[in-house]
Amino acid sequence: MHQIASELAEIARGFYSRGWALGTSGNFSAVTSRDPLRLAITASGIDKGSVTAEQIVEIDEHGGVAQPDHTATGQPRRPSAEAGLHLSVVRAGGAGAVFHTHSVWGTLVSEVYATDGGVSLEGFEMLKGLRGVSTHRHRERLTILENSQDYQALSGAVAALLQSDPHAHGFLLRRHGLYTWGQDLQEAKRHVEILEFLLEVTGRTLAPASLRE
Amino acid sequence: MHQIASELAEIARGFYSRGWALGTSGNFSAVTSRDPLRLAITASGIDKGSVTAEQIVEIDEHGGVAQPDHTATGQPRRPSAEAGLHLSVVRAGGAGAVFHTHSVWGTLVSEVYATDGGVSLEGFEMLKGLRGVSTHRHRERLTILENSQDYQALSGAVAALLQSDPHAHGFLLRRHGLYTWGQDLQEAKRHVEILEFLLEVTGRTLAPASLRE
Amino acid sequence: MHQIASELAEIARGFYSRGWALGTSGNFSAVTSRDPLRLAITASGIDKGSVTAEQIVEIDEHGGVAQPDHTATGQPRRPSAEAGLHLSVVRAGGAGAVFHTHSVWGTLVSEVYATDGGVSLEGFEMLKGLRGVSTHRHRERLTILENSQDYQALSGAVAALLQSDPHAHGFLLRRHGLYTWGQDLQEAKRHVEILEFLLEVTGRTLAPASLRE
Amino acid sequence: MHQIASELAEIARGFYSRGWALGTSGNFSAVTSRDPLRLAITASGIDKGSVTAEQIVEIDEHGGVAQPDHTATGQPRRPSAEAGLHLSVVRAGGAGAVFHTHSVWGTLVSEVYATDGGVSLEGFEMLKGLRGVSTHRHRERLTILENSQDYQALSGAVAALLQSDPHAHGFLLRRHGLYTWGQDLQEAKRHVEILEFLLEVTGRTLAPASLRE
Repeated sequence: MHQIASELAEIARGFYSRGWALGTSGNFSAVTSRDPLRLAITASGIDKGSVTAEQIVEIDEHGGVAQPDHTATGQPRRPSAEAGLHLSVVRAGGAGAVFHTHSVWGTLVSEVYATDGGVSLEGFEMLKGLRGVSTHRHRERLTILENSQDYQALSGAVAALLQSDPHAHGFLLRRHGLYTWGQDLQEAKRHVEILEFLLEVTGRTLAPASLRE
Repeated sequence: MHQIASELAEIARGFYSRGWALGTSGNFSAVTSRDPLRLAITASGIDKGSVTAEQIVEIDEHGGVAQPDHTATGQPRRPSAEAGLHLSVVRAGGAGAVFHTHSVWGTLVSEVYATDGGVSLEGFEMLKGLRGVSTHRHRERLTILENSQDYQALSGAVAALLQSDPHAHGFLLRRHGLYTWGQDLQEAKRHVEILEFLLEVTGRTLAPASLRE
Repeated sequence: MHQIASELAEIARGFYSRGWALGTSGNFSAVTSRDPLRLAITASGIDKGSVTAEQIVEIDEHGGVAQPDHTATGQPRRPSAEAGLHLSVVRAGGAGAVFHTHSVWGTLVSEVYATDGGVSLEGFEMLKGLRGVSTHRHRERLTILENSQDYQALSGAVAALLQSDPHAHGFLLRRHGLYTWGQDLQEAKRHVEILEFLLEVTGRTLAPASLRE
Repeated sequence: MHQIASELAEIARGFYSRGWALGTSGNFSAVTSRDPLRLAITASGIDKGSVTAEQIVEIDEHGGVAQPDHTATGQPRRPSAEAGLHLSVVRAGGAGAVFHTHSVWGTLVSEVYATDGGVSLEGFEMLKGLRGVSTHRHRERLTILENSQDYQALSGAVAALLQSDPHAHGFLLRRHGLYTWGQDLQEAKRHVEILEFLLEVTGRTLAPASLRE
């Protein structure tokens, strides 16, 4: 657990430095046990620029805190409010790590393409870094889910999405950000970098006027 | 005081590295005492890329230097010329820290929306990181004040703004930059990151032509 | 070999930090022997943000691994899948180092100008940093090759290009990225920085609409 | 000399990390003696990302190398080819440090406004950081000189410019970059940051189409 928490924290700090997890946004998890299901996940409200392994909590399959239930100061830490979405992804696809970033380009693209229900990334060499993709001719469809504060409903929407599209590598929440995952921490990190890169490429091809409400 | 000054300096260096406090711009303060009112604030003309705790001065409620009145070299340090604005914010809303950044996007957006008197940020998940905001449906209105070198008049305008809009989390000075604050240093830092992120998103949705005078 | 591998790794980490080699993209090589021809090259699938000298392999003139044939863990490392392109460049022009970056602007520009077969960079002082160029009046033509997963065919196309245009300093693969080279590691690094800079300048002069498919 | 060379090198590495001195571009100098006139200046062809004090040479008023005439390896180092422009600035205005950066936005803006002979920066709070400027209502005119490889002629053009406009804080070379200066290293660094910031603001207000040739 400590090794995984340290690696999660280091990756989160790297994303913060790129501007993908500002203002305590973003959350990052990894599976620590399959049976029973246990997930290490960044605690709620943590500054990702200085996050440490001690700010990662372990939750069970219902999202309850498995350990530590209290910090050294006696204050309980809560997992990220979006823990349910992480659990939905892990249950659906066997992912070992789930990362949620919150970039400027992801926010913009998720709004512009919202009425289409998703955005397609196609014909880029960079796509070959996604698990199971072997040619730039691949077409990756990122579904855009309407954002909501009802995380239970959102978790259900994620489960339904991954059932209907089991080969998806990620999805967007509208005006919110990107979710992606991988078999392990390194693969999930790679998928973040690939999809954020392609969201920036996509965003820069849009006329600014089309970005206005 | 020294602990607060060290944290202020570290945060300021971080903002400098993002390009939000270039050319000695930006100033940063934190309350060190409520009664009597004392504020730790970056000295005037300091390079934020290398600012240290020794370059933070403590001022009283009238903006006079409480300590140190002289540096080790015998040269007096002056507080930032904008100290009066920090004091206005602290008096009006009970803030524990006040941060002023000076970014490219803040400068651009404060000009484009100046004739509207302000810019609205609405519908973004990122808004939930602002104190007291619990849904992305929140609408944050950043008032844009006309820039001036008469800081006494500006301080009065800030006091009046916060009296009429006590729930505001920040404001813009035209072609100048962003002011925001928080109960403590970490909250003020979070508010800077959130509002600068949303100013960039807003700026990138503008047609360049609309940015021309 | 170890000295060259360390320098290759350091340069690759620098390009990663600029966003020019995200998601394990990019690959970097240097000649370690001319006769027989030996090339140190980044192994396949390596994270360039943390690449070390141990993740560089040495290949022979046919692209086979010369050393190490196995890592300490007994797992064989494969050279980058694009090793054949590096060998084509080395054979054609006597380059001592070949670098392939994968930037947002390189990706965009390689698409917009693809139907022209290439993009011209002309009149910039920055061009003077290219080997053998002594005036900003120089016109550098970057040919854009259609991307392909048939690396043998691509390697042939590169060989043909360099035969017909022996003074070229680089080329683009469509929606893929930049190849450039130099007599040694430092010259190849300089050429990457110059060409990526000019691709960004070129990309920023394009109307976003022209970037859409 | 060594202290100045160390500070010059540190400042140059900082500008490199912002992308303002890529590909060995940019050069940086400081006066080490007024009578006789001596200037410490970055040697020609140095990578600014790793420049050290040992890569700074001292030149006399004619641009000849005062020390060291040879490096430890016996190889003579040459001063930057643009040393004559630095000397012109120092002679004309009493500057203690002269910095030349080479940014994407400086390159773009120097081309778009070239036919106007210069670009005006006006109404920005950031201008107050320029020496002797006390209000944002200041109008700073950056003259744009046609680029040339005839540095003797360029040096003369710079001398003439500073004679006719002694209050200028900088100038642009077309498709080349920015020159600015200050009484000391810190002031010159501040002026670079202010003018590069305002060039970015200006560049982002331009319609991309206007940037095309």
